[in-house]
Amino acid sequence: MFILLSVFMTLPVLLLAATPSGAPNAIAFAESAAIVCVLGVLGLLLTYREPRELKPRYMFVLTVSSWFVIALLSALPFYLSDNDISAADAFFEGTSGITTTGATVFTGLDTMDKDLLLWRSILQWLGGIGIIGMFVAVLPFLRVGGMRLFATESSEWTEKALPRMKTLSRGLLLVYLVFSVVAVVTYWLSGMSLFDAFNHGLTSIATGGFSTSDLSMGKFSDLILLEATFFMIIGSLPFFLFVREMHGQHGVLFRDQQVRLFLGILFAVPAMLTLYRWWVSPVPFDPIHNYAATLFNVTSVVTTTGYASEDYSAWGPLAFVVFFFLMFVGGCSGSTAGGMKIFRFQLSLIILREQLMRLLHPRAVFTRNYNGRAVSDEIISSMIAYTFIFLLCLLVITVLLASLQLDFVTALSGALTSLTNVGPGLGDIIGPAGNFSPLPDAAKWILSVGMLMGRLEILSVVIVLSPGFWRG
Amino acid sequence: MFILLSVFMTLPVLLLAATPSGAPNAIAFAESAAIVCVLGVLGLLLTYREPRELKPRYMFVLTVSSWFVIALLSALPFYLSDNDISAADAFFEGTSGITTTGATVFTGLDTMDKDLLLWRSILQWLGGIGIIGMFVAVLPFLRVGGMRLFATESSEWTEKALPRMKTLSRGLLLVYLVFSVVAVVTYWLSGMSLFDAFNHGLTSIATGGFSTSDLSMGKFSDLILLEATFFMIIGSLPFFLFVREMHGQHGVLFRDQQVRLFLGILFAVPAMLTLYRWWVSPVPFDPIHNYAATLFNVTSVVTTTGYASEDYSAWGPLAFVVFFFLMFVGGCSGSTAGGMKIFRFQLSLIILREQLMRLLHPRAVFTRNYNGRAVSDEIISSMIAYTFIFLLCLLVITVLLASLQLDFVTALSGALTSLTNVGPGLGDIIGPAGNFSPLPDAAKWILSVGMLMGRLEILSVVIVLSPGFWRG
Repeated sequence: MFILLSVFMTLPVLLLAATPSGAPNAIAFAESAAIVCVLGVLGLLLTYREPRELKPRYMFVLTVSSWFVIALLSALPFYLSDNDISAADAFFEGTSGITTTGATVFTGLDTMDKDLLLWRSILQWLGGIGIIGMFVAVLPFLRVGGMRLFATESSEWTEKALPRMKTLSRGLLLVYLVFSVVAVVTYWLSGMSLFDAFNHGLTSIATGGFSTSDLSMGKFSDLILLEATFFMIIGSLPFFLFVREMHGQHGVLFRDQQVRLFLGILFAVPAMLTLYRWWVSPVPFDPIHNYAATLFNVTSVVTTTGYASEDYSAWGPLAFVVFFFLMFVGGCSGSTAGGMKIFRFQLSLIILREQLMRLLHPRAVFTRNYNGRAVSDEIISSMIAYTFIFLLCLLVITVLLASLQLDFVTALSGALTSLTNVGPGLGDIIGPAGNFSPLPDAAKWILSVGMLMGRLEILSVVIVLSPGFWRG
Repeated sequence: MFILLSVFMTLPVLLLAATPSGAPNAIAFAESAAIVCVLGVLGLLLTYREPRELKPRYMFVLTVSSWFVIALLSALPFYLSDNDISAADAFFEGTSGITTTGATVFTGLDTMDKDLLLWRSILQWLGGIGIIGMFVAVLPFLRVGGMRLFATESSEWTEKALPRMKTLSRGLLLVYLVFSVVAVVTYWLSGMSLFDAFNHGLTSIATGGFSTSDLSMGKFSDLILLEATFFMIIGSLPFFLFVREMHGQHGVLFRDQQVRLFLGILFAVPAMLTLYRWWVSPVPFDPIHNYAATLFNVTSVVTTTGYASEDYSAWGPLAFVVFFFLMFVGGCSGSTAGGMKIFRFQLSLIILREQLMRLLHPRAVFTRNYNGRAVSDEIISSMIAYTFIFLLCLLVITVLLASLQLDFVTALSGALTSLTNVGPGLGDIIGPAGNFSPLPDAAKWILSVGMLMGRLEILSVVIVLSPGFWRG
């Protein structure tokens, strides 16, 4: 992974070498790539004789530590660049990139060195495929947070056998590449510069949300906003279903319960919010334009991308509250999106209905089904453990941020946006019109850890930190 | 119950008849008592021939409807009084009373008619004993929200048999009466007027929080604040344990896991908050006085009483955030306190630890214990259903309040404070220095329903509202 990362570190320089602006931080990128490459080669030399068996315990350590280390290494080009970027800022930006969060501490993006901008987008793109790969290869195996629901070769998975892991991985990579290319080309044809199209293409499919302008997507036409809405949705759908569609299982995508509720939310919430704003608006209100804007910004938050086309936090109290709650939701499992994930809300509703039925019919026996498959007690318990630990982390991070004198809304929404990998928070400082740069360094470190924990489904981090893990 | 309520309605007039101020709204009270008494007698006449069997279904309807109807009837004296009180205000104040919430829409309490003030306190006192009775007699039977954990005659309850329900009820009433009298006398001896002592004595033990002054408890001496802290804690402890102590089972109170964590929180949180405020204070800081003030206000929120001695929301961002999270906690089950209740957090931690252990040792078998007794899956599931529905209600009420143009902090903390029966919210409007009177009428109705739902452990209301309940 380190060697691969070092290869990607040369990309911003190579791509920009022939352009008039060039790559002003070529030396920083070369140094970073060299450091990472040397570390990678050292690692290989030290371990190639070791047996390659992977116990669950090793998987946990490997998964968690690799995300933390890669976040650290990916910050090198920022830190070593000629710009005066502090360690906290560099780590925050690198983490926000690799976790596809999209929160930024950089201002003046429109005039920023293009190689650094490009590196941010490449990081998000790598993070996007990284999380898809982790979802398929690692998470169901770790039985974390109900993810076993998506295990493909377990005995509970009664459907006919899926293509083996290698074929699946190739398929996922292909789908990801194709959608990325399509996004870049579409943006380019719709009037973005090639540079802007390339960056936004990568960060849309990765539901990352880094932009090349301080105005975020507010700089571009309504057509581009509509296209971006589409690509953010693509990035938030379960990629393994795309692969199955590609392999001839037509219709699996839209028969999936996650996908249906996800699309339902994206349709209904902007519609209701627009109607409400129309209803209370004291001035003439353009429902069509406003529906498009609401759809774009709601999609951006629910898919945990984090673009903004306007300051939606200034749309009145209801919008503010709705955007706050939408930050929890997240996309589908198996996508590049973060958040608590649609399937967990659906499982919660299933439990709730079961309990109500049980109160009415104490002796009846109930079966739970999700996407046509039985849901075991084990999956329910691990989903519930995830929910509690998520809320606990939200509490702890909020309290830590408040102890750094951040106000209630900034602390709470900052903690939330980092754990869900959305990007912007709410309020004057870190809201969609704001930026994370005014925060104290300590807050940036805390939020960076929050982003990584969120990306790792929290429980995997907690378990590696628990004393019992290292015992015996 | 109606006839009993009508008897209590005459109490403010009778108690004040001999005082110089008298009872200015004697007619309103007489009318209200008459109406309620007639309804009660009518009810008796219509139903005394019916069989008295109580299916679970009837219990649900009876429990839920009686709280709603009594909240409505208890508002009559306010509504019929000479003061110009709207229906929304009267219902809000009556509900806030009977649910022991303590949120108020009345300002100018210091000069308000004494009979109305007295009625508010009596309502909270009745609500307090009402909820203790419901906890013992109804909730475990209804299997709602994990309350079966406290069932006394189920097969899982291995401890030697408790005194039968009648003895227990008498014991509970006696304990409640004794503590109330002690509170009143203590306040009186410490310098309160007899009127103030009587009112605050009732609302302390009931963890209600209605005061006779716009300054709430801020009007009184540090000694009285300390005493109030003690009585609020008493009101939040499991009353059935007092009865068992009384029956010779010494030590059961302090061996109880709920009680230990509850007291631990009340000790630790004010200590940490005071140390932090001392540390960051730019001006000289009196740690002793401030610890006492923090202890009082934290206790008021955790016990869901809702007194305030200062505007703690102005104690800086950390205090603001901490008070927000404390509003969730609540007291012990079997007390007069509301909130999510200590035991639910403890059960959540038990599940979390179990899940972490399971990830490390997939084949091991685990047993769950709470207070030395096994915790069945049924209890866990109903506790989880409670948690989800609580958060869902919080979301719905917040969104409804925001759609009435209330700001984020007011909407969120208002929804929370009503569901947990704390009393004050946070922010400029409904915070500890504010009042619910500026809210629109619609918000007052919504919050009143929220208070009743919170008092009824939410699930019992949801089940009566579910279509399946009325089918077949």
